[in-house]
Amino acid sequence: MTSRDKPFARALTLNFPQLGRAITASGGETVLQSARRHGIRIVGACGGRGTCGACMVHISDGEIEADHADPAAPSPAAPANRKKWVRACRVRARSNCTVEVAPRSLAPVARADVAGDGDADLLRLDAAVASCEVHVAEATLADNVADIDRVIRALALPIDAPGAPSIGTVDLVAAQQLPQTLRDAAWSLRLCLRGSELIDVAPPGSRVLGLAVDLGTTNAAGFLVDLQSGARLASLGLENPQVAWGADLISRIDYTVGGPAGAADELRAAAAAAIDALAHDLCAAVGARATEIVDVVVCGNTAMHHLLLGLPVRQLGRAPFVAAVRDAMDVKAREFGLGVSPGAYVHVAPNVGGFVGGDHVAALLATESHWRAAATSLVMDIGTNTEISLIHDGVFLSASSPSGPALEGGHISCGMRAAEGAIERVGLDGGRLAVRTIGGKAPLGLCGSGVLDTLATLRRAGIVDRRGRIQAPHRDVGGQDGERFAVLAPGVHFTQADVRAVQLAKAAIRTAVDLLLADVGLEAPAIGRFIIAGAFGAYIDIDSAVAIGMFPDLPRERFVQVGNAAGAGVRQMLASTAARSRARQLAAGCRYVEMSTRAQFQRAFMHNIGFH
Amino acid sequence: MTSRDKPFARALTLNFPQLGRAITASGGETVLQSARRHGIRIVGACGGRGTCGACMVHISDGEIEADHADPAAPSPAAPANRKKWVRACRVRARSNCTVEVAPRSLAPVARADVAGDGDADLLRLDAAVASCEVHVAEATLADNVADIDRVIRALALPIDAPGAPSIGTVDLVAAQQLPQTLRDAAWSLRLCLRGSELIDVAPPGSRVLGLAVDLGTTNAAGFLVDLQSGARLASLGLENPQVAWGADLISRIDYTVGGPAGAADELRAAAAAAIDALAHDLCAAVGARATEIVDVVVCGNTAMHHLLLGLPVRQLGRAPFVAAVRDAMDVKAREFGLGVSPGAYVHVAPNVGGFVGGDHVAALLATESHWRAAATSLVMDIGTNTEISLIHDGVFLSASSPSGPALEGGHISCGMRAAEGAIERVGLDGGRLAVRTIGGKAPLGLCGSGVLDTLATLRRAGIVDRRGRIQAPHRDVGGQDGERFAVLAPGVHFTQADVRAVQLAKAAIRTAVDLLLADVGLEAPAIGRFIIAGAFGAYIDIDSAVAIGMFPDLPRERFVQVGNAAGAGVRQMLASTAARSRARQLAAGCRYVEMSTRAQFQRAFMHNIGFH
Repeated sequence: MTSRDKPFARALTLNFPQLGRAITASGGETVLQSARRHGIRIVGACGGRGTCGACMVHISDGEIEADHADPAAPSPAAPANRKKWVRACRVRARSNCTVEVAPRSLAPVARADVAGDGDADLLRLDAAVASCEVHVAEATLADNVADIDRVIRALALPIDAPGAPSIGTVDLVAAQQLPQTLRDAAWSLRLCLRGSELIDVAPPGSRVLGLAVDLGTTNAAGFLVDLQSGARLASLGLENPQVAWGADLISRIDYTVGGPAGAADELRAAAAAAIDALAHDLCAAVGARATEIVDVVVCGNTAMHHLLLGLPVRQLGRAPFVAAVRDAMDVKAREFGLGVSPGAYVHVAPNVGGFVGGDHVAALLATESHWRAAATSLVMDIGTNTEISLIHDGVFLSASSPSGPALEGGHISCGMRAAEGAIERVGLDGGRLAVRTIGGKAPLGLCGSGVLDTLATLRRAGIVDRRGRIQAPHRDVGGQDGERFAVLAPGVHFTQADVRAVQLAKAAIRTAVDLLLADVGLEAPAIGRFIIAGAFGAYIDIDSAVAIGMFPDLPRERFVQVGNAAGAGVRQMLASTAARSRARQLAAGCRYVEMSTRAQFQRAFMHNIGFH
Repeated sequence: MTSRDKPFARALTLNFPQLGRAITASGGETVLQSARRHGIRIVGACGGRGTCGACMVHISDGEIEADHADPAAPSPAAPANRKKWVRACRVRARSNCTVEVAPRSLAPVARADVAGDGDADLLRLDAAVASCEVHVAEATLADNVADIDRVIRALALPIDAPGAPSIGTVDLVAAQQLPQTLRDAAWSLRLCLRGSELIDVAPPGSRVLGLAVDLGTTNAAGFLVDLQSGARLASLGLENPQVAWGADLISRIDYTVGGPAGAADELRAAAAAAIDALAHDLCAAVGARATEIVDVVVCGNTAMHHLLLGLPVRQLGRAPFVAAVRDAMDVKAREFGLGVSPGAYVHVAPNVGGFVGGDHVAALLATESHWRAAATSLVMDIGTNTEISLIHDGVFLSASSPSGPALEGGHISCGMRAAEGAIERVGLDGGRLAVRTIGGKAPLGLCGSGVLDTLATLRRAGIVDRRGRIQAPHRDVGGQDGERFAVLAPGVHFTQADVRAVQLAKAAIRTAVDLLLADVGLEAPAIGRFIIAGAFGAYIDIDSAVAIGMFPDLPRERFVQVGNAAGAGVRQMLASTAARSRARQLAAGCRYVEMSTRAQFQRAFMHNIGFH
């Protein structure tokens, strides 16, 4: 029997020379599965179902077998080169292979907006966790009360400021660590209390740190805060490792509900791993230990919230779209297996309803001064799901619109993340399409802000008509296999299908805005503040967004691009229990409006598909 | 190379025909270690150090290698038979072996006193966990609030009794289970709340059960209570599986501190396994599921408390004998890996100080009506450690006395547990020693009550003199290798060393009583109630105890044998938060007196060794 007869029986080696990695493929798994298992991040937008064509690889050496269920070979990722590209999720190695990942399929470091987003670096402190240092009397035969009682007695002495904390209950792990910590530090301690619960004991001089996380569908942004000074010590953006299971929420929910046993645990572990990586890397950056993190706040949309908490998502993903939990939850960090202080809690921010989650609540919290500045305001966070709140006359109406990944460069034939070489600006130069890339590098693909610009420019140049059809002839229009495309740069095309994808996205957003306005009897000009939150929203060109009809044509000064407001809001929640209360109040006060099942939605959506 | 050259390289089989078990021995482990690993309980009083001679086995077939460090071969367990008995902790198999365990070394089912101990079977209810059933409106598109909000809304409706529970926080696992439970049960639920925390969701009609555990050094007694009616549903006694690591607390502490890495985890897991076994077996006995247990209370001495909670015992086992935690703790059952409701808490009863723990507090709680009946009362729980509280004029003085296992038949040459064939009564019949065994079976050995009787009888017959020496000649006195012994039955001897062991035990107890009295300026006759708690205490003959000087010679009506008062007290704590408060109050109100380091203790002890 040759190895050809049993192609999957032995472990094969996959070499990734680009990444300097060699991994093993086993048990008949796909190249994408092997890569995932070894932590190599290949973009997969559909959860490995073979429908998105995001996970393109070229096998330069070795033999592969294509999945029988593989649909027609996808169009090449970069037509300019003649390599044969295949979907990593649809091929299996039959021998040792050398694998090249298409540049746009390699998950780059995210351009998460983690700095300079408008809030003061010094947060107003009203933290959930208080700390103090105590020195206790050494235990002797004449005074051998229990260690914890020794600490309680020392706290009761009037040596500290009035209002000094007092201990009611003790976290189990803190109690386990107390005796050795106390003796190692010569009977001195730094204590952390959450309310009256002693949650952490450490040697005097240990830091008292907090971690705020904006757990987005695509990116996770983390912020390390000194809970004694309120100073932001470090910030970091990582890709959400759940992306490996699908770019959009529905893909991940489908995988969780219909996937193998343990699928929910895989996604839960991936979300926790992202938080843990942020904790570890942020602490390493400032020379701290992750165990010095004694409080964590996480915000995310309802699906992120449920997947992180291990709450079932079956009911959330199908009508009538019911969450398990809406309000904030406080869960011991060790229940997630995080490497922070074992007694720390994770405060998971409250949701509104549907997919409108804690990240939107955090954005509302952080933008309150903006939305209070007008009688009618709109707060929008554009992403794979776009969350929108209309605030008018004390009424908060919130909706979620499944705008899809197109606006962020996903499911676009040459789309890519906002990394170097991504086209971020498109305009006309002498009637020809002209582009600018991130980092000024040779164009590799198109990121979100570039996608909007492209469609607006194609409209302005008359290349795309009112109904969205690409018109020929034009010097920058080409065609292949009956599909027209605009040529933005060598090998970077914007196809008729891409135009359709953006039309669907912009119509979904605009329709949600229109219907929320209609619900309170208003029209677009009533919007006094149009607040655009989110990393992506910070980079888009308002004129382009208005030109394609995604935003209403308001006076430009009413638009406010606040950047990662969710990140700012979650930092406020970390620093302040008052902010947590306000967030819960806002979340409970928002009325969630389910758009997808409304008859008017379909009518308005069809209207908004075209260009006016 | 023959197998003789590498005697430990392959897995060998150990057959235990008595038990119908065959197990593997591996890696050079001792017969005791192999047995432990496979759950075969051989009594080991010293934690495998080879000093107690409790783990006697006979290898009838196969080859063994004795440990080089093995001291002289112990005296045979049953001199009447000619088998060669060896310590299981000192021999290793060199081939497949057939192993016979000495009857007295087989851990029998404990005669834990779990029934008929004087408290009403129906407990007064004031439970920490409240339950109710709700029916909620089915989720629809028009009403798609989160599941938990649906439940909260239903609770807020005035359909229930006033004072209905309201939900503040939700346990994570309860939240995870809510959506499916709600839909499986057609939108009806039974809820359990602990304070305002929703800890359990279950289909309507599920039982609401509580588990009370008296986790003794030797035995664990469990009680299953219906928290809706207060009825005791079932009771069960098991051996504490920690016995495999040593009969006494110091052996287990030594093993935890000086043993291999993970030693503390082994003992923690063993304690948790005992509680889990009680939960499982008690529920099975009444046709319930262990997950219907929504509240657990455990009491034990301070070492049991620490070992169960994974608290370090290093400081507890050596001067100045400092506990990590004294007060009660409430810990989620899932932190122990218990198979009860995952949201349930385990309430671990408060300690007093030293080794005087929650079991003694539970005994004080349960005997309050007794000790309130006199101006000066004494509550004593006799065991391997004997805990004593003297209550006088509002002052509670508590002490622990290391009376050792002799009074319970441990470290006695023919000692055994209170199982069938154990001699439990000894007297004189025509000047000859006469015995009665449990179950009327042929005498195998001597259990605790029999030990006391034996010494009292030997004194009364003049066989033992004032200083404790066995006198010869007497028809029932023999000798071997220069050591005298009394012959109780064929093969059941009571040796000079046994007399010494009981002298040490009774002196330790009596000395503690005397010193506590002295601390408040009293003498023994002042004791108005002498309350003897504990399973062992229920079986002893007061006259024998007085005869050997263990108890003062008070009018017999002042002695009260209340049985397993700790079990009664822990059941009260399970049923009533007021009882938990009272227990915490009692524990905090007791002043712990460290005996072992007092100069007077040594003097008084020497005085109490002899007979007066």
